[in-house]
Amino acid sequence: MQLKCAFTGINGVDSLLDDKGIPSGHTVLISGGPGSGKTTFGIQFLYEGATNFSEPGLYVTLDEDPEDIKRNMAPFGWDLESLEQDIKLVFVNVSPVRSNSSERAGLMQLGMKEFKLVKLIEAIRQGIDEVEAKRVVIDPVTMFMLQYPDDTERIHAMKDLIVELRKTGCTHLLISELRGTGIEREYQFEEYLAQGVILLRTIQKSNQLVRMIQVEKMRGVNADTQPRPYEISDQGIEVYPNLIVFE
Amino acid sequence: MQLKCAFTGINGVDSLLDDKGIPSGHTVLISGGPGSGKTTFGIQFLYEGATNFSEPGLYVTLDEDPEDIKRNMAPFGWDLESLEQDIKLVFVNVSPVRSNSSERAGLMQLGMKEFKLVKLIEAIRQGIDEVEAKRVVIDPVTMFMLQYPDDTERIHAMKDLIVELRKTGCTHLLISELRGTGIEREYQFEEYLAQGVILLRTIQKSNQLVRMIQVEKMRGVNADTQPRPYEISDQGIEVYPNLIVFE
Amino acid sequence: MQLKCAFTGINGVDSLLDDKGIPSGHTVLISGGPGSGKTTFGIQFLYEGATNFSEPGLYVTLDEDPEDIKRNMAPFGWDLESLEQDIKLVFVNVSPVRSNSSERAGLMQLGMKEFKLVKLIEAIRQGIDEVEAKRVVIDPVTMFMLQYPDDTERIHAMKDLIVELRKTGCTHLLISELRGTGIEREYQFEEYLAQGVILLRTIQKSNQLVRMIQVEKMRGVNADTQPRPYEISDQGIEVYPNLIVFE
Amino acid sequence: MQLKCAFTGINGVDSLLDDKGIPSGHTVLISGGPGSGKTTFGIQFLYEGATNFSEPGLYVTLDEDPEDIKRNMAPFGWDLESLEQDIKLVFVNVSPVRSNSSERAGLMQLGMKEFKLVKLIEAIRQGIDEVEAKRVVIDPVTMFMLQYPDDTERIHAMKDLIVELRKTGCTHLLISELRGTGIEREYQFEEYLAQGVILLRTIQKSNQLVRMIQVEKMRGVNADTQPRPYEISDQGIEVYPNLIVFE
Amino acid sequence: MQLKCAFTGINGVDSLLDDKGIPSGHTVLISGGPGSGKTTFGIQFLYEGATNFSEPGLYVTLDEDPEDIKRNMAPFGWDLESLEQDIKLVFVNVSPVRSNSSERAGLMQLGMKEFKLVKLIEAIRQGIDEVEAKRVVIDPVTMFMLQYPDDTERIHAMKDLIVELRKTGCTHLLISELRGTGIEREYQFEEYLAQGVILLRTIQKSNQLVRMIQVEKMRGVNADTQPRPYEISDQGIEVYPNLIVFE
Amino acid sequence: MQLKCAFTGINGVDSLLDDKGIPSGHTVLISGGPGSGKTTFGIQFLYEGATNFSEPGLYVTLDEDPEDIKRNMAPFGWDLESLEQDIKLVFVNVSPVRSNSSERAGLMQLGMKEFKLVKLIEAIRQGIDEVEAKRVVIDPVTMFMLQYPDDTERIHAMKDLIVELRKTGCTHLLISELRGTGIEREYQFEEYLAQGVILLRTIQKSNQLVRMIQVEKMRGVNADTQPRPYEISDQGIEVYPNLIVFE
Repeated sequence: MQLKCAFTGINGVDSLLDDKGIPSGHTVLISGGPGSGKTTFGIQFLYEGATNFSEPGLYVTLDEDPEDIKRNMAPFGWDLESLEQDIKLVFVNVSPVRSNSSERAGLMQLGMKEFKLVKLIEAIRQGIDEVEAKRVVIDPVTMFMLQYPDDTERIHAMKDLIVELRKTGCTHLLISELRGTGIEREYQFEEYLAQGVILLRTIQKSNQLVRMIQVEKMRGVNADTQPRPYEISDQGIEVYPNLIVFE
Repeated sequence: MQLKCAFTGINGVDSLLDDKGIPSGHTVLISGGPGSGKTTFGIQFLYEGATNFSEPGLYVTLDEDPEDIKRNMAPFGWDLESLEQDIKLVFVNVSPVRSNSSERAGLMQLGMKEFKLVKLIEAIRQGIDEVEAKRVVIDPVTMFMLQYPDDTERIHAMKDLIVELRKTGCTHLLISELRGTGIEREYQFEEYLAQGVILLRTIQKSNQLVRMIQVEKMRGVNADTQPRPYEISDQGIEVYPNLIVFE
Repeated sequence: MQLKCAFTGINGVDSLLDDKGIPSGHTVLISGGPGSGKTTFGIQFLYEGATNFSEPGLYVTLDEDPEDIKRNMAPFGWDLESLEQDIKLVFVNVSPVRSNSSERAGLMQLGMKEFKLVKLIEAIRQGIDEVEAKRVVIDPVTMFMLQYPDDTERIHAMKDLIVELRKTGCTHLLISELRGTGIEREYQFEEYLAQGVILLRTIQKSNQLVRMIQVEKMRGVNADTQPRPYEISDQGIEVYPNLIVFE
Repeated sequence: MQLKCAFTGINGVDSLLDDKGIPSGHTVLISGGPGSGKTTFGIQFLYEGATNFSEPGLYVTLDEDPEDIKRNMAPFGWDLESLEQDIKLVFVNVSPVRSNSSERAGLMQLGMKEFKLVKLIEAIRQGIDEVEAKRVVIDPVTMFMLQYPDDTERIHAMKDLIVELRKTGCTHLLISELRGTGIEREYQFEEYLAQGVILLRTIQKSNQLVRMIQVEKMRGVNADTQPRPYEISDQGIEVYPNLIVFE
Repeated sequence: MQLKCAFTGINGVDSLLDDKGIPSGHTVLISGGPGSGKTTFGIQFLYEGATNFSEPGLYVTLDEDPEDIKRNMAPFGWDLESLEQDIKLVFVNVSPVRSNSSERAGLMQLGMKEFKLVKLIEAIRQGIDEVEAKRVVIDPVTMFMLQYPDDTERIHAMKDLIVELRKTGCTHLLISELRGTGIEREYQFEEYLAQGVILLRTIQKSNQLVRMIQVEKMRGVNADTQPRPYEISDQGIEVYPNLIVFE
Repeated sequence: MQLKCAFTGINGVDSLLDDKGIPSGHTVLISGGPGSGKTTFGIQFLYEGATNFSEPGLYVTLDEDPEDIKRNMAPFGWDLESLEQDIKLVFVNVSPVRSNSSERAGLMQLGMKEFKLVKLIEAIRQGIDEVEAKRVVIDPVTMFMLQYPDDTERIHAMKDLIVELRKTGCTHLLISELRGTGIEREYQFEEYLAQGVILLRTIQKSNQLVRMIQVEKMRGVNADTQPRPYEISDQGIEVYPNLIVFE
């Protein structure tokens, strides 16, 4: 029973993952603060999959507009639109708040709107079918959890979502908002539900802030769980798997 | 797909923003403690836009009286009233608490008053139309969020506000009150909703307190995310993009 | 548009305030722990105003009896009673808890009593009229806020109070109880509402505790925002504007 | 207007209080952790008053049985029973939980019992009349506050209690339970209501724990507010007013 | 009025207690974390009392089965069963959760069960009568308090329990679960209610964890309140009263 | 009364347990963060029992699918399927969320589902009977506790579960999710209910993170309670009982 894995293709990340990548079909949480490059990580994972590993991808956005995401990714020179045209990448916008009345000025669709898990799953399945996706990114899953103010309900909703995602067979990243900046912190419950957790954080090292990535867990892979420095360059995420972050 | 940017014009800030500025039409959070110069940053952004970049501006105040703001800005020597007369700057006061009974002494309008998102957006649109604004500042957005005690509702209200603001095409700063003084801190949810976050904080360095500015994130811009020292001089905000704040 | 200022007259404080003082008509929060000299600061501000700057003052007490305050101030040698007789100083006691049955022993007025914002404003206006006050101190505003257990309501009540106080044209100090001893702390919302904030705190320096004053903000004034040592001597508050408090 | 003071008579404490003691009629909070000697401080204050300063005293106990207190104080060699016989000291037990059914075994008076402020004040007044007390100790006032789970109500109840206590003209100590061990701490609201606050705490100094006393505030007295070491010897509380506690 | 004391008999503990032990009839809290030896302390106290000081003992268990406790104590070589046969020791199991249906498999008694204070006291009295106990241990009192979710009710229930325990004249230990590992901590209210508090904790010293015992308070005894190292050896608890734990 | 023990068989763990292992029939909590190897510890305990100590085992999973667990354990080379065929190991899946509609695509079983303690116990008993299990692992017990939002109810439910597990006579591990990363932490109540607690955590040592295991308590065993380093190698958990983790 050998685990099949999917290379992330992100510079240095697969080195942390025993040169194997993420086990195919697994749930991996990408958790980081604002500006930590979570979305970049997700897009790069799909871009690499579609371009180099024959794995088409689905990007499910719960917050930002796909056009905004694509525009923000422009500096990295990934030709996402070609991928879309070649049916190797698809964006699905399931943002619970959406104003689709740009024509009729003055008419605004305001207030809180819920979306159901069933609808979310349906949209994901359609997106997967559209490009025969092998990789899925949900960004941010925090926006989904927000709909369940009750702790127990929220955990069960997350479990249900994960169960359905696993059924698709796709390797899927759940992008999650980290609660705080501290190295000492409370675990977030989704870290326990996921099969893999990759943290994107920042620490002070000598006289500057340094970005650090840490594979907190990766079921089935003998991962390097030490924190390692990374940068967001014009190549996207770049991890330095042989450098240390602690002084 | 090249991102168009708006120079802030604030001394040293554009250096942090890859000599480009803020992507046009984006939502940027300016978050700082009391006395950190948030309002000065906002006014300076509009003043520079109107004076040097042909971008008229709208200042939406939810707390202070425009007259008070203008008087407080007097030491910086920015001729805001000329800009108002030249229809390059407009102030809109949407403070939820307002006493408009100065004539009739003894009659006071007291207690809590709500204002609706729809009304806020309407006021913003009118203000934009008035000066054909390209830049908008909302100060402080905290006062808007205060009306939504429920976490989920508050996040959705903020998302709705941001969606409407983006439709205007204006580059907009949301001024936000930082919760605490600690460098280790919980993120505030609005940092995740905004496309850019600039923090204005204070740390102890050798034997004094030093003001530090940090571009926590700026989507689409290869920003310098290191904290840098800044001062509030008679020129307004002045950032030292080449100095370090950590000892 | 030049800001008119009021000298505090307190030794060393005006040096921190660019040798100008507090902008006339502004709201300034004086926030400190128990025993930090907040009341002394307030009384000294009124004493100096009435004696040296021809600005009569109103002291609004929400907690302590005016007689107690005067007795406690006796060591400083300020002749408050002469000022009262000369109609340059007036005390108004609006303590929500007041037992006015000293004659009838055994009859006590116990329990919680509310007082309305309208009544408070009315009392303040009468006090101002009585001495043609230019300076007002409210001590402690914390007791006023206590009546509003709901966060949103409390902030709005404070805003309403401040709006009414500004209408009087008087420079006013709001004395506020600091929540904790830590240098790292959550900001208190009233720090955002006030135009100026002066903190009175204590830190350990070498082998003793040192009192430190910090002008956290002062709108319209190029204040020294570094913390500085102060003492409570028989002259009242004495600030050392050229000394540092950090080792 | 010269403040009349009452010597505590406790070794070294009056030195901290400018060699004057506590202003007569004032409210002083004695706040400390378990085992810090709060009760010893209170009894010693009354013993010294009755023996050396012709000020009879009333000890109001809300928790422990007077017999227990007296037995615990035995090692200090204060002849409390003689003072009781000479009508210079009286104990009043107003513990809200009291089982007065010692004769009828098997019959227990269990559950929560409230006692009213009015009843408490009445009991205090009777106790004062009995010995013409000039000093009152309430131990612990925490047990009284416990009856008011609502914050606002509790503060007002404390204010009411203090108002009534001041009317008696007696110098009174309110013994209060400190919430935690940390030097950085949230202030307890009763510290703001009292005119004086004396803290009894413990810190680690070199390789041992050291008891430290600190006069946090004392209205009307130019107190030494530095923390100083103290011990509980067979003489009771002994303060070393010239030693420092910080290394 | 000389305090009669009961030697604990535990190696080194009586040295901390001025070579006297615990005042007879007093309430002493033994508070520690999981694995700190609280139960061992309690059993040893009873074993020593019954064996060496002619004081029979009652062990009231609210959590573990007496058989489990006895088996766990086996390594220490205390012959508890002989003591039971000699009517010098008795265990009473008042665990609120008890399944007494071992014979009828498949039938389980599940869910939350309350037990009343009155029943608890009754059971204690019967146990005391059975062996003419002079010492009582309640393990853990935390399980009793758990039944009172309301703070005020819980404190009063504890006070009632203590009042009833004191009436028995027995010296009694209340075993309490410590909330956290930190040296800086919030006091637990039961520390204020008890006449003595002994803490069993762990700190890091050089490169290992060290167990430390501290007599936080002991009314009526001139105790050594410094923390001291202890071990759990095959002799039970062993305290080193002359060693220091801080480096 | 000699305690019978079960060797864990995990490299180095029995050395920490006085070369004896876990007392047979006891409840032991295995508490760790995400990625700490809790599940590996549990599987290894059963594998070793079934292979080397003639103790068949039952693995009760409340979260992950048994197939997922087996696949994740593949790298360790434990032939779990042979053990299942030889009736020496059985997996029971009692996950409260289970979608059993894989055939009928589009039909999803979503939302929160509760499972009753009685059902859980029944399933455990059946599993035990099936293989005549002597060892049971419940992974994670956190998912069981989640069903009881009320603190008191949750503690009682845990006690009931433990009582029923002890009746089976099996040595049982309860796998528990640690709340946070800090070394200073609040204890979790289940640490008090279990007879043994083993913590799996991570600390920074010089310039890397190090995994550390600590036997916090083990009733009836003279365990080494110092934290010791461990690794997750291709042999599973490997503990270094003679190394220290603190610098």
